[in-house]
Amino acid sequence: MTENTDSYEQNRTKFIQNALIDGKKQNIYIDESGIIRSVGTDIGKEFRSEAECIIDASGMVAIPGLVNTHTHAAMSLLRGYADDMHLQEWLSEKIWPLEAHLTGEDVYWGTKLASLEMIRSGTTSFNDMYFFMKDAARAVDESGIRATFCHGFIDFDSPEKRENEIAATKDLVSHIKSLQNPRLKAAVGPHAPYTVSREGLEWCAEFSETEDIMLHIHLSETEGEVEGCIEKHGMRPAAFLDSCGCLSEHTLAAHCCWLDDDECRLLGSRNVSVSHNPSSNMKLAVKRALPYQALKDAGVNITLGTDGCSSNNNLDMFEEMKFAALLQKFFWNSDTLLPADEAFSMATSNGAKALGVSTGTIQEGLPADIVLIDTATPSMVPMHNCVSNIVYSCSGGAVDTVICDGRILMSDKTIPGEAEILGKAQEIASQLVERANNPQ
Amino acid sequence: MTENTDSYEQNRTKFIQNALIDGKKQNIYIDESGIIRSVGTDIGKEFRSEAECIIDASGMVAIPGLVNTHTHAAMSLLRGYADDMHLQEWLSEKIWPLEAHLTGEDVYWGTKLASLEMIRSGTTSFNDMYFFMKDAARAVDESGIRATFCHGFIDFDSPEKRENEIAATKDLVSHIKSLQNPRLKAAVGPHAPYTVSREGLEWCAEFSETEDIMLHIHLSETEGEVEGCIEKHGMRPAAFLDSCGCLSEHTLAAHCCWLDDDECRLLGSRNVSVSHNPSSNMKLAVKRALPYQALKDAGVNITLGTDGCSSNNNLDMFEEMKFAALLQKFFWNSDTLLPADEAFSMATSNGAKALGVSTGTIQEGLPADIVLIDTATPSMVPMHNCVSNIVYSCSGGAVDTVICDGRILMSDKTIPGEAEILGKAQEIASQLVERANNPQ
Repeated sequence: MTENTDSYEQNRTKFIQNALIDGKKQNIYIDESGIIRSVGTDIGKEFRSEAECIIDASGMVAIPGLVNTHTHAAMSLLRGYADDMHLQEWLSEKIWPLEAHLTGEDVYWGTKLASLEMIRSGTTSFNDMYFFMKDAARAVDESGIRATFCHGFIDFDSPEKRENEIAATKDLVSHIKSLQNPRLKAAVGPHAPYTVSREGLEWCAEFSETEDIMLHIHLSETEGEVEGCIEKHGMRPAAFLDSCGCLSEHTLAAHCCWLDDDECRLLGSRNVSVSHNPSSNMKLAVKRALPYQALKDAGVNITLGTDGCSSNNNLDMFEEMKFAALLQKFFWNSDTLLPADEAFSMATSNGAKALGVSTGTIQEGLPADIVLIDTATPSMVPMHNCVSNIVYSCSGGAVDTVICDGRILMSDKTIPGEAEILGKAQEIASQLVERANNPQ
Repeated sequence: MTENTDSYEQNRTKFIQNALIDGKKQNIYIDESGIIRSVGTDIGKEFRSEAECIIDASGMVAIPGLVNTHTHAAMSLLRGYADDMHLQEWLSEKIWPLEAHLTGEDVYWGTKLASLEMIRSGTTSFNDMYFFMKDAARAVDESGIRATFCHGFIDFDSPEKRENEIAATKDLVSHIKSLQNPRLKAAVGPHAPYTVSREGLEWCAEFSETEDIMLHIHLSETEGEVEGCIEKHGMRPAAFLDSCGCLSEHTLAAHCCWLDDDECRLLGSRNVSVSHNPSSNMKLAVKRALPYQALKDAGVNITLGTDGCSSNNNLDMFEEMKFAALLQKFFWNSDTLLPADEAFSMATSNGAKALGVSTGTIQEGLPADIVLIDTATPSMVPMHNCVSNIVYSCSGGAVDTVICDGRILMSDKTIPGEAEILGKAQEIASQLVERANNPQ
């Protein structure tokens, strides 16, 4: 419950009182720059009287905003458009033909919809790869959350395509940097080792280094990719990427289902971060789960992502934590693998580290990306173990309040302007299908 | 939105207007006995004017109440009490010691909590196996939903234990039948082939037949059970159950992960129903998924259940549909296996058939077990395919209104008395742990 009618406004100091953090009732003071000035059981009156907005978090758990490290946000427009099909038919008969008709306006509204869904389910940062990314950035800026954007770079060994992709990447990165918005970051996005040439990958690696930005790539999602890479390049995908300079502390590799032990060690030695995408991997039947223990042993930073809505079909990171913890146990035949606290770290501090954002924990001096979870809901009762309830029992629906960069984006489960965005996204999605079915 | 302050009262005629059913706006008229008198696009004025309560379902999808065919409801009190442990330690050091301190009062409040959670996530019928089941029945009666109750019958080859279990089973069945409440049914519950003697199983089979009630049993959850059965009885578990008379149209077998093809055919030929419990199977790392295609080919009625909260850890059947559809695809390496519409049937009509309740579809002449899902939420937008959104995207949190047997149990996401039940359940769970840790 928030006492203040204009609490959604930015630049107002906030006092969150009585939130459960690590099992104790604590207060949080957020200053006018959106930074957590103080957090603890003892901070009180002086900050409370100073604050322009009081948020009563009694009966709520405060957690850091969740971090989704691999998605294609605008694909929310394709949610439920095609499921339960063979992968190749699904892509060539349904997804690609629809994507061929996508416009910047579509991506804008798809990203507006995705941002809404992420706010509603407690995600405050995400890592996006798609097309028309300036439009995506505009949507995220308006939504109030954080994102890292890359243009999906695909050249299929064509020098001409490569030049176009290089131009598009440079244009996007320079645009995002020019916005000077601390919530919006740019990345370079070579799609995958099987869709980008050696030359393209080498350019991406160098550009990532020069610009000091993330390199976001798909890696070894399917067995076929690994076989294809060995056939074409004489080495497994991680070794091939390494030979192109693509493995560094800037790299975020998604999926990583088919890495072998040597590749896990290679990723660890290069300080690469990986994104586990369990729902997508299960839905698309990739046959193997990310080798969590081997990656952990190699010291790799393991994070979590939902992938796009056409292969999940939602962006709920609470659900994704559960899928991760359960898939790891099931596939690797270990009832103790990936316990709840590690799944929670993947979705918070590990994700923040991978994206290079200084959130992911609730701590003095850090930006206030804070989510309040209502405990007055059956799936959070009893509270024997709060993190277990968060990972294994509750879903995004338990989120009550979302604060990003000190600004309230959702309060009492209400997001201003939500109905208009939902209506417009539905309209845009219907028109897109209409255009694909009746090309001019 | 429900126009009527006393809409939670029973025995009032109801008119649901503008609900989306099969993609069309339809109206539903429910008579004073809780029966769907009429449903369709054309029914209108005459019923609307007659109805004592108008439910405006504009922007909502109406589906049948979901059916959870395998759970241990009162284990909601153990939610999050112990996770991420080796199965044997988990049972012997945590679960069993706690259960040893359970009282009828605990089971009553645990079942109250579970019923709340089920209502909130759109489940109107469940199949329960536990202890102190008269108390469970009292809780369910008050909650307004449907359930089938059995006493978990375990004799470990002891004639003395067997006599006690027979007495407890007879007592429960006669008690439930004496209530003459159409929402409450009795069953016989031999726990599993490895915990009940041949004599015990034979008695259960005969009692199920004589009393015309369901026989609810765990079957082949783990590989170890299968090996143990072959060693002890010289045959696989399904064949052993068949030799005891336990496979019939009365039988509901839970888990069924390790059935071979012959066993699937045997279950089909005996008209057995099975309950798939994917979340539990993944969390407990049972290594194999229920053989969906083989069971389907054998004509077995395949249903869905959450199992208890200590191995899931929630009772959300929306989430369970997604886990089922994704686990089947992943484990059996088929991106087309268990499509959304089949997952939906498992959770509705197939479940109702297994429990012998005449719900599971929205149809004239049947009891009104109806759930309204709010489509004004990001995970339901766009609506390319409603069933896909229900199975793959939304969670129980999207449920707005729940009607069981014609009575409104939740309206506008509000369940009368919820806060009191949550508070009491938390208190009861804490006291239970306290007693277990400090035995007198």
